[in-house]
Amino acid sequence: MKRQKGEEYEGFSAPGIRLLEEASPKMVAVHSSENELPLLYAFHMFDKAHLVMMAEQGMIPRQAAVSMLAALREMEEEGVEKVRLAAGNGKHSGEQYLIRQLGEEVGGRIHLARSSGDLGQVGLRIRLRDEELRLMDGLNEFRGALLETAGQHRDTVMPGYTHGQHAQPTTLGHCLVAYASALERDFERLEALFHRTNRSAAGAAVLTGSDFPVNRLRVAELLGFEKTIRNTNDAVLTQDASLEALSVLTILHNNVAECAADLQVWYSDEFGMIAIPDRFCGTSSILAQKKNPWLFESIKGAAAQTFGNLMTTYYAYKGPRGLAIAERRYVLTPLWVVLDDAARDLSSMAEVMRGLKVNKELMRERAGAFWAQASGLAGALVAEKGLPWRTAHQIVGILVRLSSERGIKPSDVSTAFLDEAALEYMGKPVGLSEDALRKALDPVEFIKARTLYGGTNPEEVRQQIAELAERLERDTCAVADLRAALKQASEKLESSIDAMLS
Amino acid sequence: MKRQKGEEYEGFSAPGIRLLEEASPKMVAVHSSENELPLLYAFHMFDKAHLVMMAEQGMIPRQAAVSMLAALREMEEEGVEKVRLAAGNGKHSGEQYLIRQLGEEVGGRIHLARSSGDLGQVGLRIRLRDEELRLMDGLNEFRGALLETAGQHRDTVMPGYTHGQHAQPTTLGHCLVAYASALERDFERLEALFHRTNRSAAGAAVLTGSDFPVNRLRVAELLGFEKTIRNTNDAVLTQDASLEALSVLTILHNNVAECAADLQVWYSDEFGMIAIPDRFCGTSSILAQKKNPWLFESIKGAAAQTFGNLMTTYYAYKGPRGLAIAERRYVLTPLWVVLDDAARDLSSMAEVMRGLKVNKELMRERAGAFWAQASGLAGALVAEKGLPWRTAHQIVGILVRLSSERGIKPSDVSTAFLDEAALEYMGKPVGLSEDALRKALDPVEFIKARTLYGGTNPEEVRQQIAELAERLERDTCAVADLRAALKQASEKLESSIDAMLS
Amino acid sequence: MKRQKGEEYEGFSAPGIRLLEEASPKMVAVHSSENELPLLYAFHMFDKAHLVMMAEQGMIPRQAAVSMLAALREMEEEGVEKVRLAAGNGKHSGEQYLIRQLGEEVGGRIHLARSSGDLGQVGLRIRLRDEELRLMDGLNEFRGALLETAGQHRDTVMPGYTHGQHAQPTTLGHCLVAYASALERDFERLEALFHRTNRSAAGAAVLTGSDFPVNRLRVAELLGFEKTIRNTNDAVLTQDASLEALSVLTILHNNVAECAADLQVWYSDEFGMIAIPDRFCGTSSILAQKKNPWLFESIKGAAAQTFGNLMTTYYAYKGPRGLAIAERRYVLTPLWVVLDDAARDLSSMAEVMRGLKVNKELMRERAGAFWAQASGLAGALVAEKGLPWRTAHQIVGILVRLSSERGIKPSDVSTAFLDEAALEYMGKPVGLSEDALRKALDPVEFIKARTLYGGTNPEEVRQQIAELAERLERDTCAVADLRAALKQASEKLESSIDAMLS
Amino acid sequence: MKRQKGEEYEGFSAPGIRLLEEASPKMVAVHSSENELPLLYAFHMFDKAHLVMMAEQGMIPRQAAVSMLAALREMEEEGVEKVRLAAGNGKHSGEQYLIRQLGEEVGGRIHLARSSGDLGQVGLRIRLRDEELRLMDGLNEFRGALLETAGQHRDTVMPGYTHGQHAQPTTLGHCLVAYASALERDFERLEALFHRTNRSAAGAAVLTGSDFPVNRLRVAELLGFEKTIRNTNDAVLTQDASLEALSVLTILHNNVAECAADLQVWYSDEFGMIAIPDRFCGTSSILAQKKNPWLFESIKGAAAQTFGNLMTTYYAYKGPRGLAIAERRYVLTPLWVVLDDAARDLSSMAEVMRGLKVNKELMRERAGAFWAQASGLAGALVAEKGLPWRTAHQIVGILVRLSSERGIKPSDVSTAFLDEAALEYMGKPVGLSEDALRKALDPVEFIKARTLYGGTNPEEVRQQIAELAERLERDTCAVADLRAALKQASEKLESSIDAMLS
Repeated sequence: MKRQKGEEYEGFSAPGIRLLEEASPKMVAVHSSENELPLLYAFHMFDKAHLVMMAEQGMIPRQAAVSMLAALREMEEEGVEKVRLAAGNGKHSGEQYLIRQLGEEVGGRIHLARSSGDLGQVGLRIRLRDEELRLMDGLNEFRGALLETAGQHRDTVMPGYTHGQHAQPTTLGHCLVAYASALERDFERLEALFHRTNRSAAGAAVLTGSDFPVNRLRVAELLGFEKTIRNTNDAVLTQDASLEALSVLTILHNNVAECAADLQVWYSDEFGMIAIPDRFCGTSSILAQKKNPWLFESIKGAAAQTFGNLMTTYYAYKGPRGLAIAERRYVLTPLWVVLDDAARDLSSMAEVMRGLKVNKELMRERAGAFWAQASGLAGALVAEKGLPWRTAHQIVGILVRLSSERGIKPSDVSTAFLDEAALEYMGKPVGLSEDALRKALDPVEFIKARTLYGGTNPEEVRQQIAELAERLERDTCAVADLRAALKQASEKLESSIDAMLS
Repeated sequence: MKRQKGEEYEGFSAPGIRLLEEASPKMVAVHSSENELPLLYAFHMFDKAHLVMMAEQGMIPRQAAVSMLAALREMEEEGVEKVRLAAGNGKHSGEQYLIRQLGEEVGGRIHLARSSGDLGQVGLRIRLRDEELRLMDGLNEFRGALLETAGQHRDTVMPGYTHGQHAQPTTLGHCLVAYASALERDFERLEALFHRTNRSAAGAAVLTGSDFPVNRLRVAELLGFEKTIRNTNDAVLTQDASLEALSVLTILHNNVAECAADLQVWYSDEFGMIAIPDRFCGTSSILAQKKNPWLFESIKGAAAQTFGNLMTTYYAYKGPRGLAIAERRYVLTPLWVVLDDAARDLSSMAEVMRGLKVNKELMRERAGAFWAQASGLAGALVAEKGLPWRTAHQIVGILVRLSSERGIKPSDVSTAFLDEAALEYMGKPVGLSEDALRKALDPVEFIKARTLYGGTNPEEVRQQIAELAERLERDTCAVADLRAALKQASEKLESSIDAMLS
Repeated sequence: MKRQKGEEYEGFSAPGIRLLEEASPKMVAVHSSENELPLLYAFHMFDKAHLVMMAEQGMIPRQAAVSMLAALREMEEEGVEKVRLAAGNGKHSGEQYLIRQLGEEVGGRIHLARSSGDLGQVGLRIRLRDEELRLMDGLNEFRGALLETAGQHRDTVMPGYTHGQHAQPTTLGHCLVAYASALERDFERLEALFHRTNRSAAGAAVLTGSDFPVNRLRVAELLGFEKTIRNTNDAVLTQDASLEALSVLTILHNNVAECAADLQVWYSDEFGMIAIPDRFCGTSSILAQKKNPWLFESIKGAAAQTFGNLMTTYYAYKGPRGLAIAERRYVLTPLWVVLDDAARDLSSMAEVMRGLKVNKELMRERAGAFWAQASGLAGALVAEKGLPWRTAHQIVGILVRLSSERGIKPSDVSTAFLDEAALEYMGKPVGLSEDALRKALDPVEFIKARTLYGGTNPEEVRQQIAELAERLERDTCAVADLRAALKQASEKLESSIDAMLS
Repeated sequence: MKRQKGEEYEGFSAPGIRLLEEASPKMVAVHSSENELPLLYAFHMFDKAHLVMMAEQGMIPRQAAVSMLAALREMEEEGVEKVRLAAGNGKHSGEQYLIRQLGEEVGGRIHLARSSGDLGQVGLRIRLRDEELRLMDGLNEFRGALLETAGQHRDTVMPGYTHGQHAQPTTLGHCLVAYASALERDFERLEALFHRTNRSAAGAAVLTGSDFPVNRLRVAELLGFEKTIRNTNDAVLTQDASLEALSVLTILHNNVAECAADLQVWYSDEFGMIAIPDRFCGTSSILAQKKNPWLFESIKGAAAQTFGNLMTTYYAYKGPRGLAIAERRYVLTPLWVVLDDAARDLSSMAEVMRGLKVNKELMRERAGAFWAQASGLAGALVAEKGLPWRTAHQIVGILVRLSSERGIKPSDVSTAFLDEAALEYMGKPVGLSEDALRKALDPVEFIKARTLYGGTNPEEVRQQIAELAERLERDTCAVADLRAALKQASEKLESSIDAMLS
């Protein structure tokens, strides 16, 4: 049954060798080659690097290596994914193609000293690192849009919220800087993840490597890996690569979804503080008035899916080492989906941020209408009248309660009214001047006065933006450098092949 | 811009009406019509029933209803899913088709008193109830296979495990009955779920219904729903239908995955107690000896995916009512996948159960080799010598420890050795007879002696199987009845249409 | 080492029997007896029923049974939980107490034909059923409060939301009925769960029962179980009881948390539609104005914890049957916490509902201010002018867009303006009368007109409330009946003991 | 109501200020001070550093600062946690104590320019960084034990598994190195986490900081933080600190639980390859033979709990920024539990690893008994006879199938039998010499031959261990350095206080 060139070839698991039955159609559905489509280009790279190394090490006849590399180059002209999908058997599509094209005597030599195990890990890590770079791009695009928009809104006063209630006046610029700051940490995590992802399992085969003189470091170099995972058991059977990738992504997606949730609230009819471009909205088949913020909902849905896939992955992997293998189909297929969704969502959010329309007047008006400035008034009592903080705070607490009972707006509070509250709390008036009271009740003054490190004062926010922009610049260069290193490795691989083929 | 017959029609959200921009391509990806493919046949049913009811109620001109019903019948000849997929806009594919075929003057009348809200809920519930019936079929198929196989193995003695250690001798039959018993409860849950699923939201529109004289009960009848969810807000915005469906499925899938996990352990080289057909196994590209039990792994992976989707759903839905709407795309798309996987896996497990090869000799040998019978020996000391249970138990504990220290096998234990342990514990020998000792150490006797209600005695197991088979018979009939009721409703719908068209 | 009355007794796992070392302190922390505190009363009940049955079956000397029952009665006078906690070893606290009080010759007889396995399952199920009854009480209390409050607000017009945007006018009464309807299904699930929980595992021992003449049905009867789980393996090793309990609870908690999330939004400064009693709120150490709705947040946090515990439970149980045993400590300890929290939260929500302050004027004003009535206007164009729905809908879509561009409020729309939109869409004016336009724009008319089954019309809402109240009455009686049955069983148990002791 | 020294003081939320009612007992249960017990020492540190900074900045009278610092020093003599628990109100226990001791005129000044917001974040981060250091200790202890044990078992040949089946011979040493390698990455993640945790939020107050001249960098320095989180909104409202901590911990716990799961399988009766000390095991109340590996189960249960808490945290935090605040009680309370459990489990695993008993003979025998060496035989056909890998692999596949059909053990395979398989596949015998065949079938030779980078050859494993030990040495020093830096900061804080008090 050894296959000659041009003979039909059904792959190594054809019935009659180890097993006697064709796989049940129910199993075929699970193990369809389509599931590995996202990895085919990575398997192709590994096939080439493995052949170069084997030729260099004399593990297979040089001529066989040359024929196989030439055939793989031909495949590239037809389209790697197309040909490999047609060849079938995912990880082994290269071998199937080569055996069909060149016969088993030649093509049957490619899988020496290798297994589905290292093929899977190498494929996973090559695709993952590429997706991580795309995520970094999306993240940086969104960070840039946030910083740019923040710069335009350093004076845009608005209410800040805790417990869903007005807490203090803030600015839109200060809020957007907060998101950008969190995303900077997401970049830190992603970058560290990249370096842990970009390690080679090649040559580890299924568990113990092989007794042929493989040069694992050489294959790693040709594939652009920064490091080789040494212990061969660890290299193919530890699952932390996909777990860490999903963990980092879930935190990131959660951060982006939180921002989307904020924007959706601000966009609600009652808040009415912002508007977004029509192209990210949908309308309704019955409610003619609707401009529904689909993007925000869609991002929250995508974050939910990422979260669920993290759960799937943990649950699937639970158990002794090396037990969960075929389970991976249920783990890896969705992984590429959620990574892709996240990169798309980051880019959408950047676009929305740049197209944001802001109702500044309403925001400013609201910032003082629901006692957000109360802590500023208490502060004034401390600064101007020397009260202990707690005393000042309690007086203002009484003032707010009384103003709520009597329907008095913050802007209508008088010094006499304030004294009434002070009297109730400490048995004597506090005697804040009219000027000091007005200033303490003005949200704009509130904002300006917070000049502390990290505060809302517009000049301080400008410095925050500048610091974040500098770091973004650094991170953008870092991504470019990582891409350049991969490109360089790829050129080394191709020139090694060129040399062999010439 | 009102469309005439034959004019191009892009749907109600085309730019220039409520919104001015085309949807961003990034949104289109999320809201593609393909996502609703699994629901198109259900939307079609609802379209027809809604038209019949509207004509009956005089809500639209009879002739318009007739033209639309005739056009929908024509669509059926071409293939409902194909035409609707081409028409686009999922829930509104019927309207889009009708407007294109008949002009807006006629086709624009179908959506009266309806919305995406009730369309979505009706579609979800029609598809869900069909999937639940398929799950019931799969469940019953697996229950049947378990009971049949259990019947063949009422005498197949094997070790039973707790904490991963030999606990007591049992039989394969008794174990399989345990699985079948758990699946009976899964059926109970599924059946209750079906009746909660099979309730109509039709006519609830988006929240408050409409002020047209819709007859919600009539539409429910024509669609085979058992009941109409009364409050229209509840009908379209409460999310418990998909949450309960996924919850019930996750428990079920967990039960099946536990059975698969057991079989995988029993199939391991060290246990070596069973074998399964080659067609459910895979081999390896490097490990020529491998016959990997792919099915068991695949079931565990599918269970993990179900679990993760339950998480996604909860996470996506969290928040105020009516907020999570576009998030549903991330909830519903995977729902159909996991339901489909589960039905397939149940059928595969039934097939494997029927093809199970059992190494009876090894099982029986093992059942007595690791002191699984210890509790039987302690029982004998109580029954024969009147010892308190705890005294007997402690003596046997000492005996096992000593036999382990000295390398004595259970079958080699002598009455003298037993007396040594008794002496150590209670200062005197226990004097069990040789016969009683031999009997107490024999796993087969252990099994037979457990004649209690639910025990391992083969005759008792026969009765357990009979009881479960009777209930399975009842459940099988119940599924047939549910299907018959749906068929009857469908016939009523079609004959109502026939009457209108003639 | 057999213990005499009054001698020290450290339990069956003391070093020197099967094992030679004291348990590591690290293990003791995990297996502390405190973890089983919530189950001690249930173990006590099982101890008594088991002794009665053993005496009846002649499995132990009648006098031993009598002495042990008398000792357990004495224990009750001191306080079951207190004594058992002091006795230590949780499930085996009864045995430890009896051996210490009566010596091993008597007390050592209680554990015959029983194991930690059925003790654990019986304890779990007794406690679970009690908790489920408490949950039903809480649920019914909250349902009652919702229906009562709904009755007071059948005319309280407010905006209804989808996608976080105004969708249609509705009433607070109609919304509250929606919550109550969902909770009715939670009751359905809880009730079914109760009947699956209230089944006995007693006598199943660890896996195969025993070869003594235990009467499992008698013990079940004395413990108030409705049914005995027959197959002994299923009875002690299947995990679905806690999985289903947590699943049902998570759906329920999710429903309650959704209601809390709605109320929190309505309570926000921008919405300002409701207020709640101070006693469910907290203030801030710095923000003197704060009245934070702690209850709503706390309910959402508790729901999150329930959700997480469902995950813990699935993850802990994953794997072959009978493998996850000691893992239960991490599953069961939090189970009682979340059940307790849920019962408390339901009661709090009932209290808040009864103390709800509603800003009716603001609600009504808002209901018409953001085009929620647009679908009513489109409906009027259909009803009055015979337009197809889609045509009417598109005209209103254009109207809303234009009114938004021009800053025209819904209440200021003129027939001429409407005609402008109609002209743009269909090339001719629509000619709606002034009266019809005014009516169509009035949210109160919108509400009244929805007389359909389940709609917002106040009389229809009254009927919905009546139907739900009837079902609540039935459910309240059902809970009372379940409690009565348990009480009756308990009396039977006590009178059986009385008879033996006399 | 301003409090004098010695007067009763109930805290700032007492009724009569902002709110008029006492908190409902149902809320008190949720917000009990006990929940913050794990953070009290951290709040104490912050109280002191904040006072020092305020005095330095002239924000409060120097004398008030001196009195308060002196009172806090007194509190230390009584025991910080004890006094603060008694003082009540968790985060504000310092203020409550100071107001009671010194009156509001003095003690009421401590909370100036601060809020529950930065108190909470500072407390969280101080406790988290301490827990992270403990985890690093535990991790390093376990890594050390693994490397030490691995060194003793570089020649201990055993089967390696994939899909739960024998895959290839390996050594226990090589396996243990794999675990240690994974844990090295856990350390990398933990270390990066530490540096992101150890950042200060102090001075950010609730959202915007304050308008007093706070020196945030000075407080950070006194508290040993490496960096100050600049934007004050980000500092108090972004949730990624606990999310990342739980993510890193869940991956780590998963790795440890996988190792425990492996050991539990190897410890099973059928595998019988290892034994562990009695002190980590439990026995049974009925199964006298039992030595259940409680530790392994307990670790898996703890990992499940960590996993569930990660879920709780994501679910609780979902939603707009600053909405989930009181939800934290449900997030933080379990966080300390799972961190503590993990540190304990790592130490237990180190202890078990050092006490591991290994059945070397059985392991070696098994390594060759189930065709694990098949890939070695195929390799021999390539190396010795020049066959393509695939040809060799298929021949061995046929050989294994035939040997299984005929009941021939690997060690009994003859060259003739091998030729029969070769003939079947490629129409001619392969002619492997008897010597080469014997060598290829010997698991020990298999191990030795894998000299590749990361392979199983004992000398290569020695080098792997050396490399990992070097890195462990570095990591151990890193932890010591981190602790030293914290100690130095603490000394700086205390000497600043000393200077003020003298």
